[in-house]
Amino acid sequence: MAVGHFPFPPMHPVAGVRLGTTSAGIKAGSNVGDRDDLVVIEACSGSNVAGVFTQNAFCAAPVTLCREHLAKTSARYLVINSGNANACTGEQGMTDARASCELVAQLVGARAEQVLPFSTGVIGEPMPMPRMTAALPQAVKNLSEGGWEAAAKGIMTTDTRPKGASMQFEHDGETVTVTGIAKGSGMIKPNMATMLGYIATDAKVAQPLLEQLVKKAANQSFNRITVDGDTSTNDSCMLIATGKANLPEIADPSGELFAKLYNAVVAVHIQLAQSIVGDGEGATKFVTVQIEGGADRSECTRVAYSVAQSPLVKTALFASDPNWGRIVAAIGYAGIDGLDAEKVRVHLGDVLIVENGGRAASYTEEAGQAVMDLEEITIRIDLGRGKSKDRVWTTDLSHEYVTINAEYRT
Amino acid sequence: MAVGHFPFPPMHPVAGVRLGTTSAGIKAGSNVGDRDDLVVIEACSGSNVAGVFTQNAFCAAPVTLCREHLAKTSARYLVINSGNANACTGEQGMTDARASCELVAQLVGARAEQVLPFSTGVIGEPMPMPRMTAALPQAVKNLSEGGWEAAAKGIMTTDTRPKGASMQFEHDGETVTVTGIAKGSGMIKPNMATMLGYIATDAKVAQPLLEQLVKKAANQSFNRITVDGDTSTNDSCMLIATGKANLPEIADPSGELFAKLYNAVVAVHIQLAQSIVGDGEGATKFVTVQIEGGADRSECTRVAYSVAQSPLVKTALFASDPNWGRIVAAIGYAGIDGLDAEKVRVHLGDVLIVENGGRAASYTEEAGQAVMDLEEITIRIDLGRGKSKDRVWTTDLSHEYVTINAEYRT
Repeated sequence: MAVGHFPFPPMHPVAGVRLGTTSAGIKAGSNVGDRDDLVVIEACSGSNVAGVFTQNAFCAAPVTLCREHLAKTSARYLVINSGNANACTGEQGMTDARASCELVAQLVGARAEQVLPFSTGVIGEPMPMPRMTAALPQAVKNLSEGGWEAAAKGIMTTDTRPKGASMQFEHDGETVTVTGIAKGSGMIKPNMATMLGYIATDAKVAQPLLEQLVKKAANQSFNRITVDGDTSTNDSCMLIATGKANLPEIADPSGELFAKLYNAVVAVHIQLAQSIVGDGEGATKFVTVQIEGGADRSECTRVAYSVAQSPLVKTALFASDPNWGRIVAAIGYAGIDGLDAEKVRVHLGDVLIVENGGRAASYTEEAGQAVMDLEEITIRIDLGRGKSKDRVWTTDLSHEYVTINAEYRT
Repeated sequence: MAVGHFPFPPMHPVAGVRLGTTSAGIKAGSNVGDRDDLVVIEACSGSNVAGVFTQNAFCAAPVTLCREHLAKTSARYLVINSGNANACTGEQGMTDARASCELVAQLVGARAEQVLPFSTGVIGEPMPMPRMTAALPQAVKNLSEGGWEAAAKGIMTTDTRPKGASMQFEHDGETVTVTGIAKGSGMIKPNMATMLGYIATDAKVAQPLLEQLVKKAANQSFNRITVDGDTSTNDSCMLIATGKANLPEIADPSGELFAKLYNAVVAVHIQLAQSIVGDGEGATKFVTVQIEGGADRSECTRVAYSVAQSPLVKTALFASDPNWGRIVAAIGYAGIDGLDAEKVRVHLGDVLIVENGGRAASYTEEAGQAVMDLEEITIRIDLGRGKSKDRVWTTDLSHEYVTINAEYRT
C-alpha cells in the first residue's frame, strides 16, 4: 500500500550524466529478464561527486568501499544492484564489491577506484558475481542521458513505485538542472534493506562545498523521515555536479547562484524523501510532524522523532483517532530538560488541541476528527521556549505493516 | 492476550501494612459495584516511604502532588484509583488530587501531606470527585493485612491479570518479608495510562538508603521493560519499609542484612516488571534481550533497547522468524562509538547466529527456527569490547497490538 500523490515526474536530463539499466537476475530465485536490477551511472570527466552514508556500525561492504574510493579520487562511475545488499557478508562481500568496480572499470576504461558500488536487497547472501559479470556490458551499452526513469525502476526492491524529482532554475541566462532518483519503502525491510538516492546537477561545484551541500540536503530530507525508526546497513545518498552548465565554478556558499542551487538541491531531496514516506510499508497516512518554538534545533528534532516514532501515535493515526493524550505523552518523554508542559501548544492541522497542560478549551472531538480523516495530516507542536524549529515526515502504523514484516519470509 | 506463566502467587502479609479496596465507579460510564477501582494503603507509624516517578514532562497532577508531599514529611497513606489518570487536567487536576488526600486524612486522622495520591486511567477527563468522596470510607473500612490480592485487582485498568510477588528471607532468626503489587500492560494505553508498583517490607530502612534502594530496584526492573517504548504521564513505584521486623535499622548498604534485603527487593521488582511484560498488549512472546561484553553499562542498555524496540525485530518475533539481519541492523544503529561489527556475536537462545560480521558458519535456519518457535526467547548479544552487561524484557509486535491500539476508542 502507498499513500499520497507522488507521480513519477518528467525528468530533465543533466548534461554530463548518463544512466544504463538492465536485468541481471540478481535476486535469489530470479532470472535474467525478470526485472531490471542493475544500473550504471556515468558522470563526465571533470565532475565532482560527494555522498553521505549510513551510520549503521554494520555497514555493508559496498558502503565501506565507496568511502575508500571517494577518499582516493574523484568518482566517474556508480554501479548499483538491487536484489542483494551484499551486507553482513564478511570478507567475501568486500572481494565481490571490489570485483564489481573492476569489471565496470575494464568496460569503460577507467580505474577501479573511480567506480563506486551500491547494493540493496537481501542481507547475508553472497553476491551472484557471474550474473553481475554477464550483465554489466549491457548496462554500460544502455548508458544514455534519458535513462533516469529506467534507473529509478532498476534500483527498486519492495518499492511500489519509482521515485524521481527534477527541477530547473535560471541564472545569468543559463538553465541549471537538478534531477534525482531514490528508492526505499521508508525502512529496512526484512532482508531488503536500504534507502538509496542519486541526485545530479550540471552546475559546477567545488568538491568541499559539494560535500557540505549533500550533507545539508540529506539532513533536511532523507534524515528527516521515519517509518519505523529502523535504519539500514546500506543507506547512501550521492550528489554529482558535472559542471556542464556554462557558469563559473561555485566554491563558497555566499553567492546568489549557490543560494538558488541550494534551494533546488534541497527541494529535490525533500521530494524524493517524501516519496519514500508515501511508499512506506502499509502506509495509509502521510504525516508531517512540525515542531516550532524550540530552544534549539536538536531538541525540536528529538520531539519530532519522539512523536513520529511512537507506536501509540502511529496506531492512532491509522485509526484516524485524534488521540491528543498520546501526542502529549510522546512530547513529554522526549527528554527535553525543563520543558514547561503549560506552555506547549499542539495543533492537528489548523485545530488547536492542547494548551495550558491539557485539552484546549476550544477543542471539539468533531474538529479533531475532521483533520484525522484526511490522508495527509500535519501535527504542529509549539514548545513555547524559543525560536528553533524542525520537521519530520512519517506514516501511520497499520495492520498491513505487521503483515508485510511478519510474513515476508513465510 | 497475555504470554508466559505469571500466576498470582501466595502473598505474605507485611507487618505494618494494611490495604483496603472498594468499588467507586470512577471510570466514565461505569457504576459503583462494577469493579473495584479504589485502593487505600496504610503504612504504620514509623514507616519510611520512598518512590520513583515518571520522567514524562507532562506528568499527572497526582505525581506532582506525591513529590510535593514526600518532600515535606513521611507518608502514612497511599490512595490509588483506576479508571481516570487525572492527567492533562490543568489546575482542576491539582485541586482534585489535593482533595483526595484531604478526604483520606480526615477519615484516618492524619495530615493531608501524609497521604500520597495515585491515578491511572483515561487522560484529560476530570476526576469524578463525588464518587471518590462517597467510596473512600468503605476503602478505609476494608483496610486489612490480607488485602494485597484485592488491591492488585483494584489498580488494574486494561491488565488481563493481577500482578503480585512476595518473598521472605531469614536473618538472625527473624523472618523478613518483601511483598508487592503492580499494574500495567507495558505501555501507555490509548488513554489508559501507566505502570504502578507498590512494594513493602517489614525491614527497617533509613530514609536515604530506602530512596537509593527503590531507585536501584526500579532501574533493574520497571526501567528495563518495554512493549512499545512509550512511557506514561503517571508511572510511579513506591517502596514502604515499616520497620516491624525485630531487626536493627539499616542505614548503610555495607552489611549482610542489606545485601539480603536488596536481593529480595530487586527480585520482587523484577517479578512484577516481568508480569507487566507478560501482560503486554497483544504479546505472544516473552523476550529477554541480554547484552554482554560492553565497554560500560549504558552502552549495553542502549543496544538492548535498540533491539527490543525495533518494530522489525518485534514483527519477526511475532512471526517466529529467526531474522538475524534485523537484529544485526538494530545493533548497528544503536549509535555505539567505534563498535567493531566483526567482534559482535549474537545468540538466539543457545544458537550462535552471528559472528565475524555475518551469519555464523555453524548456523542453520532449522536451529534458529527451533528457538523462535518457543514462547520465551532470549536474544543474547556479546559486543566484544568489555565486561559490562545489561538486559531488557520485551514482547513481540502483533496484529492484536495494532487492533487494541487502533480500535480502542472506536
